[in-house]
Amino acid sequence: MTESELYQWLGKYGIKTPCCKVVGMNEEISVDFFPAVLKIQSPKVIHKSDVGGVILNLNSNEEIKNAREKMKKNIQDVHKIPLDNNDCFIITQMLQGEELYIGSVEDNVFGNVILFGKGGIYLELYKDICYIDSNAQEDEILRAFKNTKISKLFEGYRGSNHQMIEVITLVKNIQKLINENPDIKELDINPLKLTKDGLIAVDARIKKSSSISKESLRKSTRPDFLHNQRVAIIGASTDKTKAGYVVAKNSIGFKGELFFVNQKGGQLLEKPLLKSIEEIQGNIDTAVLAIPAKFVIPTIKELIPRGLKNLIVITAGFKESGHQEEELEIGKLAEENNFNVLGPNCLGYFNDSTNLNLTFGTGNLKTGHLAFISQSGAVLAGLMDYANALDIGFSHIMSTGNAVDLESSDLIPMLDRDPNAKSISLYLEGISKGKELLKNIRNTKKPIFLFKSGKSEEAAKAAFSHTGNLSGNYDMFSGLMKSLNVRVVDNIEALILKPLFHNSKEIAIITNAGGPGTVLTDAIVARGKKLYSLNEQNIRALNAILPEHWSHNNPIDIIGDALADRYKASLDVVDNFDGVDFIYMLITPQDMTDPLGSVKILKEKTYKHKVIPILIGGNMVEEARIFCKTNKILFFSSITEATSFL
Amino acid sequence: MTESELYQWLGKYGIKTPCCKVVGMNEEISVDFFPAVLKIQSPKVIHKSDVGGVILNLNSNEEIKNAREKMKKNIQDVHKIPLDNNDCFIITQMLQGEELYIGSVEDNVFGNVILFGKGGIYLELYKDICYIDSNAQEDEILRAFKNTKISKLFEGYRGSNHQMIEVITLVKNIQKLINENPDIKELDINPLKLTKDGLIAVDARIKKSSSISKESLRKSTRPDFLHNQRVAIIGASTDKTKAGYVVAKNSIGFKGELFFVNQKGGQLLEKPLLKSIEEIQGNIDTAVLAIPAKFVIPTIKELIPRGLKNLIVITAGFKESGHQEEELEIGKLAEENNFNVLGPNCLGYFNDSTNLNLTFGTGNLKTGHLAFISQSGAVLAGLMDYANALDIGFSHIMSTGNAVDLESSDLIPMLDRDPNAKSISLYLEGISKGKELLKNIRNTKKPIFLFKSGKSEEAAKAAFSHTGNLSGNYDMFSGLMKSLNVRVVDNIEALILKPLFHNSKEIAIITNAGGPGTVLTDAIVARGKKLYSLNEQNIRALNAILPEHWSHNNPIDIIGDALADRYKASLDVVDNFDGVDFIYMLITPQDMTDPLGSVKILKEKTYKHKVIPILIGGNMVEEARIFCKTNKILFFSSITEATSFL
Repeated sequence: MTESELYQWLGKYGIKTPCCKVVGMNEEISVDFFPAVLKIQSPKVIHKSDVGGVILNLNSNEEIKNAREKMKKNIQDVHKIPLDNNDCFIITQMLQGEELYIGSVEDNVFGNVILFGKGGIYLELYKDICYIDSNAQEDEILRAFKNTKISKLFEGYRGSNHQMIEVITLVKNIQKLINENPDIKELDINPLKLTKDGLIAVDARIKKSSSISKESLRKSTRPDFLHNQRVAIIGASTDKTKAGYVVAKNSIGFKGELFFVNQKGGQLLEKPLLKSIEEIQGNIDTAVLAIPAKFVIPTIKELIPRGLKNLIVITAGFKESGHQEEELEIGKLAEENNFNVLGPNCLGYFNDSTNLNLTFGTGNLKTGHLAFISQSGAVLAGLMDYANALDIGFSHIMSTGNAVDLESSDLIPMLDRDPNAKSISLYLEGISKGKELLKNIRNTKKPIFLFKSGKSEEAAKAAFSHTGNLSGNYDMFSGLMKSLNVRVVDNIEALILKPLFHNSKEIAIITNAGGPGTVLTDAIVARGKKLYSLNEQNIRALNAILPEHWSHNNPIDIIGDALADRYKASLDVVDNFDGVDFIYMLITPQDMTDPLGSVKILKEKTYKHKVIPILIGGNMVEEARIFCKTNKILFFSSITEATSFL
Repeated sequence: MTESELYQWLGKYGIKTPCCKVVGMNEEISVDFFPAVLKIQSPKVIHKSDVGGVILNLNSNEEIKNAREKMKKNIQDVHKIPLDNNDCFIITQMLQGEELYIGSVEDNVFGNVILFGKGGIYLELYKDICYIDSNAQEDEILRAFKNTKISKLFEGYRGSNHQMIEVITLVKNIQKLINENPDIKELDINPLKLTKDGLIAVDARIKKSSSISKESLRKSTRPDFLHNQRVAIIGASTDKTKAGYVVAKNSIGFKGELFFVNQKGGQLLEKPLLKSIEEIQGNIDTAVLAIPAKFVIPTIKELIPRGLKNLIVITAGFKESGHQEEELEIGKLAEENNFNVLGPNCLGYFNDSTNLNLTFGTGNLKTGHLAFISQSGAVLAGLMDYANALDIGFSHIMSTGNAVDLESSDLIPMLDRDPNAKSISLYLEGISKGKELLKNIRNTKKPIFLFKSGKSEEAAKAAFSHTGNLSGNYDMFSGLMKSLNVRVVDNIEALILKPLFHNSKEIAIITNAGGPGTVLTDAIVARGKKLYSLNEQNIRALNAILPEHWSHNNPIDIIGDALADRYKASLDVVDNFDGVDFIYMLITPQDMTDPLGSVKILKEKTYKHKVIPILIGGNMVEEARIFCKTNKILFFSSITEATSFL
């Protein structure tokens, strides 16, 4: 494509290009855009600049005409390239303005993704770029773009009067271009000039691919995994060291019908162990397999005619042990017979609404409204144990294991439909169907919290050897997630804690020391939250109960000699402040401090606000920590930990 | 100053400016730098651009001459400004190149500081700027500049052949300029063009201040605080709830002579309580005051004639309670009588080499090589307790309290001279003498670890109300510290832990699960450390003891069914790998895991490498956590915590 053809093609999609005109060797020149650039346009000239084939800064038609003569002479006489009447020249408008960049790539994971941000030599230097899905809607485009610093140029920065709508329009045009030209593998518009007439593509480079294989989005005809009425645990075991025992034990209490199957027969937890599936009367909509790997496929084949809708394969020993084929066979059976599979090599499934605990993690799962999807059984096991210690409950737990059939993305719509789940937390390692994930998140109304491992190259390598899944470019991943308003967290504990606090904005601090109070304030602000501002009435209320030299400010420094009674008096007062979302009770071990007495207050009285003790130090606060653990009071031992979920 | 005068003045300091020539109203024009810019230079024209007084892109002397005629006409005929023979024109070279920025500000805390980085409209947008002390040496300039992204343009980025020496030369010239012109309050060279001829100042703006008051650096004539031979504790008390008791109790074991003074007399800890200072024979080089505030000044006056060199005022109730004047009186006495004061309102002083513990924090301070200076008593108390629980020792502890005399910066040279301190950790809130701090850090050979609170505006406000010290601009602060190679840490625990690990580069992970291993890898890489790479011999050694499907990679995933024996076998092997700096032992609670048994290994055998257990989860790993605490094994409960000091 010549430059003029390129401009025309971009124009077809509504993308602005500079004014331009092609003129012949001796054609009359009459353009009305200045300053202008003159360039040779000839198949004989590859590198224009090398032969004097580009002249900048021309301010009149006469200057252009003179420049054309000079250029002809230079090319023909100095560089010995003969020109004829098939050759021509292109005159383009020279544009002043900031250099931006827009382009698209075909990513292995996410398919076509648009990149937009600062261009020119600063593209790579500052990486001030956002990532936008080729199917993104306006709100996503805006949310993504606002993560760049260059977006300030569209928000009145230094008197600029550019509008965000210019960006949205351009991105939508690029979406149209790449969606209508599926053979485009890469598009680079660099520079894209931000001129007083808007965003103008000055140059573009296209790379096409010969093979076109785009991910097709899944049509959901599968049964809903969350409907479970008749559940069979195949491999329920009396051997307490086996997963088959733990799952069976956890499952007791299910509100539907429950069957235990073990070829040895006998009894388990006051229920009969049926010797075969045949012994179960009627259909089996949900089955758990905790049997040796070699029996998995024959057992599935036995279950299919029984109306199987959902299968949980806890059994390990497939892909991760080199048995890829057997694993794929499970996926094929599911596809052909329209049932769902979770696993293999997974930690199981929990659904609070029917009290169905089919996990082989810790028992005692508490009732709650947090749905949790995990691609790692161990991370899930750790977090279930953590949540249990803190008395935090779940609505659902789904461990995807090797994800031969259902992936994390498939589970999101199911959880979105279940009113029992108020938020969805995801621990992701690799992703195979990126467009599907984006679509399902886009269509979800619930807040989503997400942690992805494999951010660094080293970790991606480790994750690959561990799950065999591509880990992808983390910047792109997190950029796309943020455009969808997903709360991307930076530590796994936040998957459990952040859903409890994400709506909290204004925080009060009651502290017995100024220094740690300041450190906590910094940590809160760094997480984008803020301190509640005391009003005069608040200050009067605190004056009445605190010594004269208290801070008169939030952090509320109640002075180093504060005993438990002063903490209590302060909490009683602060608990009545409107606008406070929750309260940190910061306790540092000083001469007079009574850490144990101070946290005991929280057991003795129920406050309207959540009160979170932070117990800094070592042995001097140990008793208080043990008290909190014993009484399931959420507390922290460092300021870093205490703010990592905000 | 006219533009031509400005260029001349900058030139005097070796700062390059564009070629330029001033010509009169009708003077012959003959310059040899093109393209050129023509500008009117007349006191009658304030805003040149508004009257057509700037014409760009002139390519020959003739074009310049024509432009001058056009400009004269425009100014005189259109804008009705009569020009005469006192008016003239300036012709300057139009420079192509990236827009950088250099400038200086007079900061309240640090005095003159140079700012250097990306300029133009991106100065504020990207804040890609470094901070350089006006007294910085070459290595500091380089270290500071390398923290900017724009520095890549001097490291061969995209074929650039600019050299770092250009930057150093320019910064040294700017240093000279501002040091020789102490009336300059602000200097802004923007843009500074990076051209093929080097860095050229195109425009400069200067703001002068009428009052010149620069911080004068302290002349060190003070005694060394760390030499303590005859120590008196004034206010030693038999009342166990009093600081005077705690300090006296902690002081027992001092290798020099120790005196307890209390007007009530009697005995304390098998030593006589002297009724007055008079009862002490001979000189008193070091005294601690733990007496009511009103007795502090009279007591100091009594101590001065006794050869007082060092005074530690634990007593509170000065500035923080509104008694600023009494506090300043202490400082004045110290200055006049050449003794040092730590405090008032401080937590005391510890010096391991003479076993002198004059703190009223936890007793049992362990011997070590970490010197710690803290501006917050509570942060210090928390960290002393934390270190004590982890069996980490100190060489010195110095609590500056209200710092009426000795500030953190004064203590650094003393600690640098003491071979017992191998590193210095600083907890800073506000700084009053910035240049002194920079000088003293510059002259220190030991690694310095530093945490500063009051990063955010909110926290700075809280810190100000707490200490009354200015907190300053955190970006400038941390930039200057990094230029001095100070390790600026982002959490207070790292002040204790990072000195133990800062030389560690390559880390091994032994884990019973792939997912958490990947998360840990990400966290390690994010902290700038790396994983040790297993070689063939390492893999063979691990093959011999691990199940077939172990990860064959670091993280060394020893598989979910690992019991304590497999952890032990792995540790025994990995402990022999050359090049590993330390080992994380990551334990997640899975079906088969034995967390307690696994950490017990560390009590039973001493490994060459430091082995750090990370116990993820809740109740299932609680016993193991308690075992670690009881046995003072450094362990962590989350990956965030476990890597926050790297």
